[in-house]
Amino acid sequence: MRYGYFDDAAREYVITRPDTPRSWINYLGSRLYGGIVTQNAGGYSFYRSGGTGRVLRMRFNGVPVDEPGRYLYLRDDATGDYWSASWQPVGKPLDEYAARVRHGLGYSVFEAEYAGVRSELTCFIPAGQAFEYWSLEVHNPGDRPRTISVFSYAELANEWHHRQDLENLQYSQYVVTATYRDGMIHRRNSTREATSDLWFGVAGAEVVGFDTDRDAFLGPYRTQARPLAVERGACSGTETVGDNACASLQVRLELAPGERRQVIFCLGVGHPDEPWRDERPRIGDPAGAAPLPPGRRVMAEYATPERVAAELAALRAEWAERLGTLQVRTPDPELNSMVNVWHAYQTHMTFSWSRGVSLVEAGDRDGLGYRDTAQDVLAVVHAIPDAVRERLGLLLTAQTAEGGALPLVKPLSHTPGREPTPRLEEYRSDDALWLPISVAAVVGESGDLGYLDVVLPFADDGEASVFDHLRRALEFSLAHRGPNGLVQGLAADWNDCLQFGTTGESMFSTFLLANGLRVVHELAVASGRDEAAAWCADRLAELEPAIDAAWDGDWFVRGVSATGAALGSAAADEGRIYLEPNVWAAISGATSRERAVRAMDAVHEHLATEHGVALCDPPHTHPMPGIGLSLLVFPPGHKENGGIFCHANAWAVVAEAMLGRGDRAYAYYRAYLPARYDDDAETHQAEPYVYAQFTHGPSSPRFGQARNPWLTGTASWTYVAVTQHLLGVRPEVAGLRVDPCIPTAWDGFEVVRAFRGRRVQVRVTNPHHVSRGVAAMEVDGVPVSGCVAPDALLRDGSVVTVRLG
Amino acid sequence: MRYGYFDDAAREYVITRPDTPRSWINYLGSRLYGGIVTQNAGGYSFYRSGGTGRVLRMRFNGVPVDEPGRYLYLRDDATGDYWSASWQPVGKPLDEYAARVRHGLGYSVFEAEYAGVRSELTCFIPAGQAFEYWSLEVHNPGDRPRTISVFSYAELANEWHHRQDLENLQYSQYVVTATYRDGMIHRRNSTREATSDLWFGVAGAEVVGFDTDRDAFLGPYRTQARPLAVERGACSGTETVGDNACASLQVRLELAPGERRQVIFCLGVGHPDEPWRDERPRIGDPAGAAPLPPGRRVMAEYATPERVAAELAALRAEWAERLGTLQVRTPDPELNSMVNVWHAYQTHMTFSWSRGVSLVEAGDRDGLGYRDTAQDVLAVVHAIPDAVRERLGLLLTAQTAEGGALPLVKPLSHTPGREPTPRLEEYRSDDALWLPISVAAVVGESGDLGYLDVVLPFADDGEASVFDHLRRALEFSLAHRGPNGLVQGLAADWNDCLQFGTTGESMFSTFLLANGLRVVHELAVASGRDEAAAWCADRLAELEPAIDAAWDGDWFVRGVSATGAALGSAAADEGRIYLEPNVWAAISGATSRERAVRAMDAVHEHLATEHGVALCDPPHTHPMPGIGLSLLVFPPGHKENGGIFCHANAWAVVAEAMLGRGDRAYAYYRAYLPARYDDDAETHQAEPYVYAQFTHGPSSPRFGQARNPWLTGTASWTYVAVTQHLLGVRPEVAGLRVDPCIPTAWDGFEVVRAFRGRRVQVRVTNPHHVSRGVAAMEVDGVPVSGCVAPDALLRDGSVVTVRLG
Repeated sequence: MRYGYFDDAAREYVITRPDTPRSWINYLGSRLYGGIVTQNAGGYSFYRSGGTGRVLRMRFNGVPVDEPGRYLYLRDDATGDYWSASWQPVGKPLDEYAARVRHGLGYSVFEAEYAGVRSELTCFIPAGQAFEYWSLEVHNPGDRPRTISVFSYAELANEWHHRQDLENLQYSQYVVTATYRDGMIHRRNSTREATSDLWFGVAGAEVVGFDTDRDAFLGPYRTQARPLAVERGACSGTETVGDNACASLQVRLELAPGERRQVIFCLGVGHPDEPWRDERPRIGDPAGAAPLPPGRRVMAEYATPERVAAELAALRAEWAERLGTLQVRTPDPELNSMVNVWHAYQTHMTFSWSRGVSLVEAGDRDGLGYRDTAQDVLAVVHAIPDAVRERLGLLLTAQTAEGGALPLVKPLSHTPGREPTPRLEEYRSDDALWLPISVAAVVGESGDLGYLDVVLPFADDGEASVFDHLRRALEFSLAHRGPNGLVQGLAADWNDCLQFGTTGESMFSTFLLANGLRVVHELAVASGRDEAAAWCADRLAELEPAIDAAWDGDWFVRGVSATGAALGSAAADEGRIYLEPNVWAAISGATSRERAVRAMDAVHEHLATEHGVALCDPPHTHPMPGIGLSLLVFPPGHKENGGIFCHANAWAVVAEAMLGRGDRAYAYYRAYLPARYDDDAETHQAEPYVYAQFTHGPSSPRFGQARNPWLTGTASWTYVAVTQHLLGVRPEVAGLRVDPCIPTAWDGFEVVRAFRGRRVQVRVTNPHHVSRGVAAMEVDGVPVSGCVAPDALLRDGSVVTVRLG
Repeated sequence: MRYGYFDDAAREYVITRPDTPRSWINYLGSRLYGGIVTQNAGGYSFYRSGGTGRVLRMRFNGVPVDEPGRYLYLRDDATGDYWSASWQPVGKPLDEYAARVRHGLGYSVFEAEYAGVRSELTCFIPAGQAFEYWSLEVHNPGDRPRTISVFSYAELANEWHHRQDLENLQYSQYVVTATYRDGMIHRRNSTREATSDLWFGVAGAEVVGFDTDRDAFLGPYRTQARPLAVERGACSGTETVGDNACASLQVRLELAPGERRQVIFCLGVGHPDEPWRDERPRIGDPAGAAPLPPGRRVMAEYATPERVAAELAALRAEWAERLGTLQVRTPDPELNSMVNVWHAYQTHMTFSWSRGVSLVEAGDRDGLGYRDTAQDVLAVVHAIPDAVRERLGLLLTAQTAEGGALPLVKPLSHTPGREPTPRLEEYRSDDALWLPISVAAVVGESGDLGYLDVVLPFADDGEASVFDHLRRALEFSLAHRGPNGLVQGLAADWNDCLQFGTTGESMFSTFLLANGLRVVHELAVASGRDEAAAWCADRLAELEPAIDAAWDGDWFVRGVSATGAALGSAAADEGRIYLEPNVWAAISGATSRERAVRAMDAVHEHLATEHGVALCDPPHTHPMPGIGLSLLVFPPGHKENGGIFCHANAWAVVAEAMLGRGDRAYAYYRAYLPARYDDDAETHQAEPYVYAQFTHGPSSPRFGQARNPWLTGTASWTYVAVTQHLLGVRPEVAGLRVDPCIPTAWDGFEVVRAFRGRRVQVRVTNPHHVSRGVAAMEVDGVPVSGCVAPDALLRDGSVVTVRLG
């Protein structure tokens, strides 16, 4: 069943049925002030942090689902009938209420027509601002005058801290006041840390009523579907002290036939009448340091139709420019829609919000997962290189002098040189091993080998060049190997649910080490570090026998316990084969091509499904001596226990592309491509425009249902997989490599890409319908040998043509 | 406005309008398995802990309010119309739906009549069991046959831990499975700590349908008010894997004219078909150690109408016996209703659940506040002396060797001798100073002076007799005094919102120390500890000059900062007078009667209101140098910032009674007596049958509204105030003191009381309409001098007559 479509020209996903199988959401704003909004205008807002800066409250996993939100009620004052600018919360029958929701980049628009009245609500946070617009246009297309009252409803959190707000009620319900003066609501709230203020105002119509007491607005034993004030047609003028605040302003619109009126509601952080300074600690967040202007001044300056239009246009232009750094045109329109708009947007949201704010991440995770972050940068380095370099700097300074990494980095309080060194068993064995890939991406994108010489402190003690940071990461893993010469699994490797500890060994981390040695070897060669290059090569050679021994006959084992028990072995009843070691065998190049092919064929045979590649099979139902399987908390087919963990599916695409098998790589890509569920949304359930963390695997009765959309490493790695491995356009120090591995049916494709300050167009033709192999490359008509367009030849506007065959 | 009435004969509060101003709740069960139920059957259940044993989920501070709960839907299969056995969640118009809710002791009954069908739902947890009954009787009083489908709806938590369940959704939504077999639902859930199971079954009718997937039962974009399965008339047979579980069983009742049918739903901890053992650590909780029987066996044994009736009768009998240990008959029927039933029940709930489970305590507080617990025991020591002695033992072993106390005691993990010693600034200055009062209560109630010789370990190191524990408490406070000779305030005294720290001094704690010296002096004299008695007397004398110096002219200051600034002084603009030091000046006896009288007159002049005595006046709006006023987070009139903090109101009653001013003591008692709001519930809002933590003070626009009902120290101290000080019946080592201080209008009153294994009747007459002064006392007709009925004279059934005058 279809609930919407991609409007690529507008860079929008248009939802035509608001009763989607689950909430289909969008992200608004920036790290200063952000928000989430569902297709029914449900969702919440946050200032600087989803966990400790809650502005609009959210009831997670609630009934009714995903409420409250940014609600505007429209009431026909002649009949008393009322509805909402978004389908929910009032939820009029969909045969009477026409709805169209346009999720755009950083904004969402809710179009509705009911009872002969049209409305369009536009929600967004203007760039760089700490307030949000709820701009409503009401249109009377009929031939008689209409009187429409509009009521806003914003349920404001009582406390910045989400848990204080949601759970410590014997405290948080008694800290709030909300007053009304001259058209504006002022929510005040004395917290333990600071005094926080919010303001709420409206422009474009006179305020005829207000409520700031949630329970007075809603009325007893009612819900947002049926607020007493709206039913009655009048707010009651409450100014709350304690209990729960809300911001409701009522305006009344007299609409002549054909008339349109725009009313602009704004909600912002700070005081209505005084500049407001955030006194909470802010480290590395200069944006928060300047005082915010009074809300009334913001309203005067920003709450005009012209300014709303200008700010929205500016926001759209900003995203157009940011996404314009990589645009593709292939024979696959769904691939195009994803890569050019939504997939790219998702990688930016993941970079911005890590795993902290969504409808399933309630706010507890305020820090950055080390490995998550190291991977999140890969997809945005071409678009926002400065931000990536800053973030990567944070990660490098969260590496310890012994080479491991802090599992969680807290950007607001991280203090290099003074963080405690974890105990060995607290390290994750993969965290620091992602650094070579991330650093190589920065170097490849920029061509700046000097970055390797930048000196940065360690988390706990000392400092080193970026290159030596990488070497420490490799040394750490080399130093912490087990009896079989493989890397110790420690607290976890990439798979949080597998705990090999200090006695067991992880094949995933072993291949990631091998990959790191290869990548650092390349960087060493490129930067003239001969000794280091030799060292990498020697270490890689030393690893070979141990890797050879981990071959299980048709694939690589997942790991080995201290007692020698193998996980991911054909000899076992459960978890016989795992995806991760076999894809990384291929990606790292640390095994023979023959074994890589056999392993990936085994993956195809045992793990591939119509909805993606399962993480392991058969799923586990019993503990395993010597290896911590915390995935046993999940039923078979869920999450890490045999679910289709989409992040790792991206690696399967990369692995097959590296093996030159373009049809299979593309088939793997298509299997979990959200857009391909546009016509089958009831199977996939999650948004067809963003990747989810996992899809229920074949052993789950929910097979095919996707869960935990938006904030997932899937976004970043799939973006790498499709742009750099399928389409094969990959920046390197020497220039822009174009080495596609595509489905044989394709005639070719085009890529436009930013590259070191220039814009380069890549045109690939595939006359002989191969998957891989560059027969000819030209830069602006000049033939080039190989498949790397040399940096020196590339100018702004250069055209790189590639013929496969 | 009136929403219900006290039915003292049935020991019930009967709610006649279910649309009460706030949720009016009841508590079910025991420490093994407990629950909360609102007047609309909303609420939750918990196994062993509200925080870490969540069974039924609760959405706190939700919209809709206080859902979900124990919901049974009734559907007329002829018309398709449906309603709920409780008014909400369906919420039929109250002019069509007749509702009566009977909250009893440990059970609640929901009577309804709608569409010509009567129903009665009885919810309770049988004594000592880990399951709950939802027993429904459906009656067709009409003259035509009716077909009624009944659907249960229990929203089961995904995780034992409330926060995992409510917030860590990217994890907790993927751990649950719920299956159906042979009439029973089995909810399984692999947590990190243990495997947990729940079962749900029904008896009395054949199961014709089931759902275990919450969202399938409710249907998309619906709420509990309008579940799809009920609207459709048929469950859809879902067995959930992941997402959210529920337990819905559908039965169909064919009711002939006049016919009644009973169907019994049960929800329990454990497995339907196998014995179930809780593997989580349990210290000092032997009840949890035995395996639970299979749910199917429980159903067979317990789910019969006869057994339900027998279990309910047993529960009622148990409470009748427990509450029978102290019953009163006075000229004030509201006093009688409270003391004989609800107030007593509240003291037991407070003792059981501390501050851990309510509608405002979401579960985060799993430990016992030291001072809370020390005071909670005072009201139940006559009823459950063994449990009190055990709890007091826990507290004594949570005292450190230097005499202070751990602020929070965790009963499931407390390890005497191995707890870390707090730093000085972490101690609260009052915590250990409550021990003399609690120990004296145990000794007075039992007459067992040997208790003082029991040797118990300290929290951190060493051991001592109970008497020496008390002495250490006094020594700790004596050792930590400030430059004015008053007790340092440390992290807080009783008022958590005042932080005098290690440099400022607390007058509250100083008086509590003086009171402790007086009480321990009495215990020393009674137990022949002459040296200790002299030591107490000397220390008390030494304190006198410092106490004298804290007199502000008309009252005592609240405390002094290091710089000499006084809180609670007439010289200040805010917080000029505080309640606590002045009541404790009177109670402790550590000042002259003249000053005590002047201080309490000042309290009356400045703090007394029609709804009780405010904690301070004027409320604070500005910080104060040198004294931490965290009450500044609360607007004026809220909570500690000038609110009517009911706990301290009890002390005002005690103080006035000790001064012999019975009319004022009684007026103070009446001012915040919940029952007196029975006709004015819209003012008080909270339940008229239990005390609340605070009432909004006169400077709040919500003046008179009570908040945070049930779990509050108000219950215990008010019980002490009314029974031991107003009615004046107080156990002492020598016997039973009867020294009332009553309103002059009273002609007398009667008390029946357990006393050391006997039942004693006290009959007081007041022919001359005095407040205080025993003119004559007889025990079983034998005159006794003074006002203490000697232990040696009291037998079971003895009658103590007292004539005032």
